[in-house]
Amino acid sequence: MEFKAKDIAALLNGVVVGDPEVIVNNVSKIEEGKPHTLAFLANPKYEHYIYTTAASVVLVNQDFSPVKEVPCTMIRVASAYEAIAALLRMYDSMRKRPTGIEQPSYIASDVTMGETPYVGAFAYIGKGAQIGHDVKIYPQVYIGEGVVIGDRTTIYAGVKIYHGCVIGKDCTIHAGTVIGADGFGFAPSGDNYDKVPQIGNVVIEDNVEIGANACIDRATMGSTRIRKGVKLDNLVQIAHNVVVGENTVMAAQCGVAGTTKVGSHCMFGGQVGIAGHLKIEDRTMLAAQTGVTNDVPAGSIYMGAPAFDAAKYRKCYVLFRKLPDLYGQLRELEKEIQTLKLKQ
Amino acid sequence: MEFKAKDIAALLNGVVVGDPEVIVNNVSKIEEGKPHTLAFLANPKYEHYIYTTAASVVLVNQDFSPVKEVPCTMIRVASAYEAIAALLRMYDSMRKRPTGIEQPSYIASDVTMGETPYVGAFAYIGKGAQIGHDVKIYPQVYIGEGVVIGDRTTIYAGVKIYHGCVIGKDCTIHAGTVIGADGFGFAPSGDNYDKVPQIGNVVIEDNVEIGANACIDRATMGSTRIRKGVKLDNLVQIAHNVVVGENTVMAAQCGVAGTTKVGSHCMFGGQVGIAGHLKIEDRTMLAAQTGVTNDVPAGSIYMGAPAFDAAKYRKCYVLFRKLPDLYGQLRELEKEIQTLKLKQ
Amino acid sequence: MEFKAKDIAALLNGVVVGDPEVIVNNVSKIEEGKPHTLAFLANPKYEHYIYTTAASVVLVNQDFSPVKEVPCTMIRVASAYEAIAALLRMYDSMRKRPTGIEQPSYIASDVTMGETPYVGAFAYIGKGAQIGHDVKIYPQVYIGEGVVIGDRTTIYAGVKIYHGCVIGKDCTIHAGTVIGADGFGFAPSGDNYDKVPQIGNVVIEDNVEIGANACIDRATMGSTRIRKGVKLDNLVQIAHNVVVGENTVMAAQCGVAGTTKVGSHCMFGGQVGIAGHLKIEDRTMLAAQTGVTNDVPAGSIYMGAPAFDAAKYRKCYVLFRKLPDLYGQLRELEKEIQTLKLKQ
Repeated sequence: MEFKAKDIAALLNGVVVGDPEVIVNNVSKIEEGKPHTLAFLANPKYEHYIYTTAASVVLVNQDFSPVKEVPCTMIRVASAYEAIAALLRMYDSMRKRPTGIEQPSYIASDVTMGETPYVGAFAYIGKGAQIGHDVKIYPQVYIGEGVVIGDRTTIYAGVKIYHGCVIGKDCTIHAGTVIGADGFGFAPSGDNYDKVPQIGNVVIEDNVEIGANACIDRATMGSTRIRKGVKLDNLVQIAHNVVVGENTVMAAQCGVAGTTKVGSHCMFGGQVGIAGHLKIEDRTMLAAQTGVTNDVPAGSIYMGAPAFDAAKYRKCYVLFRKLPDLYGQLRELEKEIQTLKLKQ
Repeated sequence: MEFKAKDIAALLNGVVVGDPEVIVNNVSKIEEGKPHTLAFLANPKYEHYIYTTAASVVLVNQDFSPVKEVPCTMIRVASAYEAIAALLRMYDSMRKRPTGIEQPSYIASDVTMGETPYVGAFAYIGKGAQIGHDVKIYPQVYIGEGVVIGDRTTIYAGVKIYHGCVIGKDCTIHAGTVIGADGFGFAPSGDNYDKVPQIGNVVIEDNVEIGANACIDRATMGSTRIRKGVKLDNLVQIAHNVVVGENTVMAAQCGVAGTTKVGSHCMFGGQVGIAGHLKIEDRTMLAAQTGVTNDVPAGSIYMGAPAFDAAKYRKCYVLFRKLPDLYGQLRELEKEIQTLKLKQ
Repeated sequence: MEFKAKDIAALLNGVVVGDPEVIVNNVSKIEEGKPHTLAFLANPKYEHYIYTTAASVVLVNQDFSPVKEVPCTMIRVASAYEAIAALLRMYDSMRKRPTGIEQPSYIASDVTMGETPYVGAFAYIGKGAQIGHDVKIYPQVYIGEGVVIGDRTTIYAGVKIYHGCVIGKDCTIHAGTVIGADGFGFAPSGDNYDKVPQIGNVVIEDNVEIGANACIDRATMGSTRIRKGVKLDNLVQIAHNVVVGENTVMAAQCGVAGTTKVGSHCMFGGQVGIAGHLKIEDRTMLAAQTGVTNDVPAGSIYMGAPAFDAAKYRKCYVLFRKLPDLYGQLRELEKEIQTLKLKQ
């Protein structure tokens, strides 16, 4: 498909600066721009690319003012990032999605299946499972007994969902993720451990996206709960009885230990670790690799391990890097005091 | 099923405080207690919930003495945590387990299969594999050539076990875990690397539990070995030729590099990393996110990266957080010395 | 098979010290050596084992001179590590590899398949995929629409490759790894997030090895790219639009955030984390658990989080461990100055 700059501007409610008739037929990143592609500039770090990009059209923020001539046509929009996301959604929605039930697949006789399903080959749907409308179950997925999956949810290849778990509507779960494996519960018994059975489940609410090869364990009793709008990246670990609040976002390789309650609208960088039995209040932001060992009040920005206020942490870390200097200064003062004492 | 408080007390060798006739039909967490459920109180952090819980019956430790009136019937037992674990085991043992061989599955012609197996659909069992009695192999499991699996072991959906590995009796391996992939061995060869073939295997002894999406690599030569009673959580990484000693427990996302020997009865928090070729002696405890770069003597409690004694680490970290103050004090002393020098 | 020491020496261009007629029929590690096995000594840390090993033959570096009598026959070679690697490759190449197409498997009608393929049972190959010659696709692998796989590549059990990704020649991808899942891209939209579709792909060049349960996300636009000769260990996370340069090696559980460019010939220890939108130049070495938050110049050796020069970091860390002493010294100086002031 081909579009003129002026057509895209009309679609996005933007203003063309340059040739409105220039044609694009694909998208590209501004730093890898090619003729007849559309790129975007949202992150100021990439601004210098706009003066040399080969892309024919670049979406820019309304308030962007070039410091020299640009070789491309620009379209000014309220938010370049939101505009490109909207365009990608249009583009993506035109991709043909699989449908129908491929063979061989295994669907237990009493499964409830909604309209227009996709069930890939080698997928397994256990007894009593309830699958909503327009659900896409890719090949090699395992859905245990009594699992419930809401309308329009997509489960990519090889996801494993243990018995009794509940997945909401409009969710996306990427390949290899495991939902509902046993929580890590063992009671010491002499020199050994006895397993504490994990008889709860996992409940994932609507509009949740979970990356690839992540793990969300079932509760010992009750439910491990991922509230609506949560986004979890690849290889994230959520332990038994954790609750993750609405619209919280965790980058890859984060881990949250048992029974911790994470508030809503939190943002965690990659590789963050949170100890068990804690309360992380709403709108907490944690830098990558932060290790949290205590409750965190609402709106905190923390880093370090054990974690504390990020601005304070950065100050301490600047001085950590200067410790050899400080050590030298301390030695110097000792000498001066010695000298002073001798002079007395 | 329904039970009276007095029946549960009899079962657990406990003493009823309150109404012995009250009926429960399910379990709950004390903080989410509902009428006609049984909860427990083991962690003192949760003690305040007992004064408001809606649970009808709560298991408590013998030595618990309430500071005000409790709204529920209590059952005093030697250990509330062990008692609830025992009850959950009874409850769990009544859940019906799958049995039989589902179709389609792939079982090579010369596989030895014990009595009363479960083999889920799309499971693959390669040539020469030996499967014990009462083994449960869930759907989409891959068992390579010559693998041996002991009696009563459960392999959840999608586990992959490479050729030649050995799994003991009474083990549980959760979904998505990979056992016996090649160790990470490459020999520099000019600007490139040549692969060092990994011709050893993995041996997992009896009564081991491994979480979901974990990785245990095969040895270069000989065996990577997980000794009896070990418990590994989700996403744990065990490299080639590692040995993990009896009853050692590692929380999620730990990683142990090649050839390191970990002793028995160790406990590692989440996201711990251990360098290669080290010896971690028995009963070592490592705080979450600890990074170990040297051998660790028996009974150590370590934290930090690089790791050292945890109590010492905490003292250092308190002063790390005070570095801006210390820096100020150092500047102050400099001034005072300047003043003293001028006065002389 | 059995070999005499002198035959092995001839094969490796080495020199026998001891009995040239002694026979070996297997390999072992020097610390676990058994009679009639061949071991090797490359790491000086293991040198003491050579004086007690039960192995019959040990490969040693040319420059190794024993400090006392050794109980075994030695073969001196230019590099013991390279020699054993070469022997293991010979040994490994004699292992019979699977071949043919097992049933049931799912191969879309328009798939292009090279000569002498292996396709395991329950493998899925989507529409338009192009599979090279001598490719091995193990059971339960998922290959999405239009995926291209080069000659002689091995895809182990349960790997999932999303639509449109490209894998080079002579690659090895271990079990459970997910290639081409959506990058983690969401645009804030009020209190919620809108998904940014990820319409790019992953390109993996020739001679790459990727461990088990790793994740390499597809690009938002364009390609996430793993250049030739790269080696990634288990559970590594590579985000959207990342580029990893030639022959770079990352140990287990590393994570690289979106759009970061990693140079060639870098070496990262385990659990390293790298923030997004950075440039890590060629031949950078990062200690395990390092956290990188800024660009890194070529040839750097970094550690810490946030990371800086490793030699400097170690000096700072030595003083971090001495902070209680420094604190005491600071208090002492204060007292001495007080005394001096009083005396004036």
